[in-house]
Amino acid sequence: MSEKRLLARLESARMIGGDPAGGITRPFGSVAEREIRQWFLAEAEAAGLRTRLDGAGNLWALFPGAEENILAAGSHLDTVSQGGAYDGALGALMALEAVETLKDTGYHPQHTLAVLVLTGEEPNAFRLSTLGSRLLTGMLSLDDIRDITDDSGYSVWQALAEAGATLNSHDLLPHIPLKGFVEPHIEQGPRLKEMGQPLAVVTRITGIVRHRIVIQGEANHAGTTPWLQRRDAVQGFAQIVAAFKALIDGHLDQLTGTVGYVRVYPNAVNIIPSTVEFIVEWRSPDQTVLTAVSEEYWDMVQQLGNQRGLGITRQVILNQAPSPMDATTQRLLQQMIASEGLEPIALESWAGHDAAHLARKVPTGMLFIRSNGKSHCSDEDCDAQDIVLGSRVLTAFLRQWDQMVLGRRPSC
Amino acid sequence: MSEKRLLARLESARMIGGDPAGGITRPFGSVAEREIRQWFLAEAEAAGLRTRLDGAGNLWALFPGAEENILAAGSHLDTVSQGGAYDGALGALMALEAVETLKDTGYHPQHTLAVLVLTGEEPNAFRLSTLGSRLLTGMLSLDDIRDITDDSGYSVWQALAEAGATLNSHDLLPHIPLKGFVEPHIEQGPRLKEMGQPLAVVTRITGIVRHRIVIQGEANHAGTTPWLQRRDAVQGFAQIVAAFKALIDGHLDQLTGTVGYVRVYPNAVNIIPSTVEFIVEWRSPDQTVLTAVSEEYWDMVQQLGNQRGLGITRQVILNQAPSPMDATTQRLLQQMIASEGLEPIALESWAGHDAAHLARKVPTGMLFIRSNGKSHCSDEDCDAQDIVLGSRVLTAFLRQWDQMVLGRRPSC
Repeated sequence: MSEKRLLARLESARMIGGDPAGGITRPFGSVAEREIRQWFLAEAEAAGLRTRLDGAGNLWALFPGAEENILAAGSHLDTVSQGGAYDGALGALMALEAVETLKDTGYHPQHTLAVLVLTGEEPNAFRLSTLGSRLLTGMLSLDDIRDITDDSGYSVWQALAEAGATLNSHDLLPHIPLKGFVEPHIEQGPRLKEMGQPLAVVTRITGIVRHRIVIQGEANHAGTTPWLQRRDAVQGFAQIVAAFKALIDGHLDQLTGTVGYVRVYPNAVNIIPSTVEFIVEWRSPDQTVLTAVSEEYWDMVQQLGNQRGLGITRQVILNQAPSPMDATTQRLLQQMIASEGLEPIALESWAGHDAAHLARKVPTGMLFIRSNGKSHCSDEDCDAQDIVLGSRVLTAFLRQWDQMVLGRRPSC
Repeated sequence: MSEKRLLARLESARMIGGDPAGGITRPFGSVAEREIRQWFLAEAEAAGLRTRLDGAGNLWALFPGAEENILAAGSHLDTVSQGGAYDGALGALMALEAVETLKDTGYHPQHTLAVLVLTGEEPNAFRLSTLGSRLLTGMLSLDDIRDITDDSGYSVWQALAEAGATLNSHDLLPHIPLKGFVEPHIEQGPRLKEMGQPLAVVTRITGIVRHRIVIQGEANHAGTTPWLQRRDAVQGFAQIVAAFKALIDGHLDQLTGTVGYVRVYPNAVNIIPSTVEFIVEWRSPDQTVLTAVSEEYWDMVQQLGNQRGLGITRQVILNQAPSPMDATTQRLLQQMIASEGLEPIALESWAGHDAAHLARKVPTGMLFIRSNGKSHCSDEDCDAQDIVLGSRVLTAFLRQWDQMVLGRRPSC
């Protein structure tokens, strides 16, 4: 593999969507995101790969093998607002480097090898994260999203069409003969850094539950309304967040959670807030814990609302089960890591990934590359040495995977 | 006085700035607010009063007396967003009714009597509440606000000019010979309703302190960042609001407070919030309590910030001392209430009013009219019977005030 070529591509990608306020802003549907898609297709074609777009605008760069069945590696190229340079882009460009290396070294694959760049993995203006992988795997249908627009009325279908999606369900699974997927990705958390290890194999991807909760109190004058007669939604919110913290404190290492989105209405200094809308997110690799804690929380929130005379409503906006990675794929990744003289670390992923959806349809694995523990922010970082190690492992893995594991299975 | 004329004017005013989402939205600088100013000037001229605009765009409708020295009654015509029909408009139109009644009954005043409509009392896009009274009394100079714009870049000077302000400091106090001011206003709180009394005289207007506080944590990935390593600004905010509640609970009847404005950044479901910006407001008629509690709170907030590794900064955006009403004016208002066979109730005002600024320059009083206890919202209401009673008291008061109290003083 070419360290120089890979690092140069990472540098080129970093330049697309730089945000004047810091970091990279390249959400699905943005000008910058369209630019990086075009750039990626040009790079893949220059590398001699055949490029295709599927029904969801996912980018496929193919290195044809003896059979049409596909083994793919990849990730995504979109980012959160003011995000980092490695979340997504590293995996996509490591996959391109690995497939290009196999091609350049004269390898003749059994399967068609593919670099797969999935559309819109991060939350975006359409409120549809992991969009490309959900459409590809049928977790979401094209019809499901036909009427979804961003706040300005721009439709997600229009955005997909402009990204080159065929919007044809025959260009999605099961009509694409995909037989396996592996996603290299920065760890994003601090565990590998703390262990002093550069690489890990993912065992399962966290489940994620998101609830949009609305606290309804009553707007009134901030001076004249006696304290004990107020139905103040912000005061209720503070108590509800304290209950949230207490639940997490009681389940450390089993689950985590975040209140990342909060809107207050009417949001004026001299009016008692009538309404707080917030989204609470719970994550756990253990479905039992995830369900038990999120439902216990909902009971607590309703009780607190009753006590304070506040109306409480909930909308379940995401309920994604934990997703175990394929055992055979994990074993092979671990062998390749061991071949580099490294300890084959196994980690759960507390971040959601496209691989969580792919895993429900095809044997899927994930390779974590150590990062500095910061992510979804401009301070995200990853060492070149670890990137090179990961790329060597990925290249060796793809070759072995093609020959040893799936190559023995009957083609379907 | 004419009950019919006054109620018809209140109804006309209610029609200006009706908000499709409910209530009345007529903030300073809006089309609706400009419309009601024109409507008021036309009504005052039709009533035979002479209209003038001062340096701050305050509207003066004059009933000339033997001397140029002015005794004024009035309030404001702008509203909060989705506000009620009585906050401000009732006082302005009661004052018009009282002066018109005195004129129609052939009264020849010693002083020039004026209806005074003060510009921009409510918070507005320029973040300048009680704008007209602060400019009139010199609490704020025209130069102070020269560079202030709304978020779109529209300047407050431009808005004042379009409202007809002369923007000349010679058209403000002390160049206007104002010798007294009385502001009739709905109570906005529930105390008169609970006492079963229609009217009250205000003893002092609450002091108000507003601090803009910014909690600075660190944005990071909502899944991969271990719970104990987070610097989550929303979690810090919840704890800071709980401390706020505890302080108020410990000082009931002495002070009140509200966290009415909250913004969270980056406000995304899957990113740990880096920043919460909020405005905390404290109100007390007692300066000692106001200072002690707001500073105790600031100490607590800084300690909590230190404990959680959060940066905390504060900007004092308002520090308005309690404003006692003039004793002579209070006594005369109480006598007029007693003349109607009513109990002369004395109340502190927990709402801020233009009268708080006027009181620092001229003898000033306030007359409260019972309302339903809701305000700064569309549910605000006030009985016609109480409005009529208040108008009778105001008319009698103006006549007595003109003759008995200030009329004896040497003209200056």
